[in-house]
Amino acid sequence: MSHLFDKVLIVGIGLIGGSLALVLKRRGIAREVLGVDLDPGNLEKAKALGMVDSIHTDPCQPALEADLVVLATPVGAIPVVALKMAPHLREGTILTDVGSVKGPVVKALEGALPPGMAIVGGHPIAGRERSGVEAALVDLFQGAKCVLTPTPQTDQVALGRIKALWETMGSEVILMTPELHDQIFAAVSHLPHVVAYSLIGALLDLDNGTTYLSDFAAGGLKDFTRIAMSHPAMWRDICLLNREEILAMLGRFRKALDRLEHLIKQGDGPGLYQAFERAKMAREGL
Amino acid sequence: MSHLFDKVLIVGIGLIGGSLALVLKRRGIAREVLGVDLDPGNLEKAKALGMVDSIHTDPCQPALEADLVVLATPVGAIPVVALKMAPHLREGTILTDVGSVKGPVVKALEGALPPGMAIVGGHPIAGRERSGVEAALVDLFQGAKCVLTPTPQTDQVALGRIKALWETMGSEVILMTPELHDQIFAAVSHLPHVVAYSLIGALLDLDNGTTYLSDFAAGGLKDFTRIAMSHPAMWRDICLLNREEILAMLGRFRKALDRLEHLIKQGDGPGLYQAFERAKMAREGL
Repeated sequence: MSHLFDKVLIVGIGLIGGSLALVLKRRGIAREVLGVDLDPGNLEKAKALGMVDSIHTDPCQPALEADLVVLATPVGAIPVVALKMAPHLREGTILTDVGSVKGPVVKALEGALPPGMAIVGGHPIAGRERSGVEAALVDLFQGAKCVLTPTPQTDQVALGRIKALWETMGSEVILMTPELHDQIFAAVSHLPHVVAYSLIGALLDLDNGTTYLSDFAAGGLKDFTRIAMSHPAMWRDICLLNREEILAMLGRFRKALDRLEHLIKQGDGPGLYQAFERAKMAREGL
Repeated sequence: MSHLFDKVLIVGIGLIGGSLALVLKRRGIAREVLGVDLDPGNLEKAKALGMVDSIHTDPCQPALEADLVVLATPVGAIPVVALKMAPHLREGTILTDVGSVKGPVVKALEGALPPGMAIVGGHPIAGRERSGVEAALVDLFQGAKCVLTPTPQTDQVALGRIKALWETMGSEVILMTPELHDQIFAAVSHLPHVVAYSLIGALLDLDNGTTYLSDFAAGGLKDFTRIAMSHPAMWRDICLLNREEILAMLGRFRKALDRLEHLIKQGDGPGLYQAFERAKMAREGL
């Protein structure tokens, strides 16, 4: 048989889970795709869009049949769902996830599941302004990076199969420890989001904040507000799970902000020029 | 005659000055466009691109002939150039600018020039990632907003002609006081830029900052770094000229950042959700 997997169970059919299901079906990577979601309306949409073969609101019964389980719920729910499913998974089933935080999630998965299960932590670096199943795209992962975070406990065969899965999606797979992943993403993703949310919060606190935002966003704000389109539950979970790394990065950000504010207070033209040029040159190097 | 102006002198042939020159020429809005720039190479390019009829490195001699002078240098240089040109401007000439800060600039212009001159402060809200004369576009101002900032001293006929000029460019003209302009743009543009520069600075301070930036910018950082492509001299000048308003907005931003950091420290899930949802709803309202 030419399928990479037989029955793939995807828990959480949103942007990521839905896009994954779509490619698995369209390209015949899985023989069968089983969709689980708490929202029956969401499941009906996924069925109508041809993403899944069968739909379920409870993950336990279909878990018995799956040879691959992909947890694609908001990241905070991943350990909870895994714990619930644990007694219903058969030996040899591979369990992976797509959560944006890896350290505590992989730890929880390895703690919750019996030793016979193969666990591979994953994080496809893909997103859109819109979220939800209707935003799913067949080429969402094409040309994107996907981080996999093996630990000393990780089964190497399972790791190889999950690597193959994401490469089939068109992604470039990068391996690193869960801890390094969380450090890097605290820097390049979580901190920028916290900063953008703070900025929008500060503007909304102004009397005319909403008017300013809507009338003059072209002045540089549009890029910031785009970031605020992500799902609030996702960012709540990320802030709770990657708390320490985010707080550490926030400390570094404050130092840089203090430095720039000091230059502005002092009216230090050459210092400001140097700071701005450094950023511009770094951007041009990308 | 069907020209809106006879001889227009544009001082500073960069993205804004160059785009303005391009439209003035192409659409015959001015009979003649005179280009001034400190950089002779820049002037040659503008000539070759058909933006200007004649090129000059000194603004004083061609100023004698112009019925409209547009100051499009980095904003910090505008008062200096105006002071230098003042003795060479004939009565009735209209002088306008395109600077991103208005209060101190308009004040300096009104102080520097003889009473017979008509001064109209302006700020077209247009930009691109790239800067310089090669980035100039014929449709840069099409559909954009342009703020004009009259004062009690402003000649109403001159204001009407500058309004007509920007409307001919396809822009929507908005009138407000220089002070309100500087408050609004401290909020929607200057603060976001200072924050973005601080964020990039914090990441560059990391040992692996450059690698993280280049390998994982898709995680949310790309929108931030785009902002850092602007010209360092422009942002230095803005920070120096709109210092008080920017510092006030930075104070507000710090309060919002403190609030979010506190929620993260406390692990306050409902509080975080609420903060993120507020931003998302504001964005959706745009």
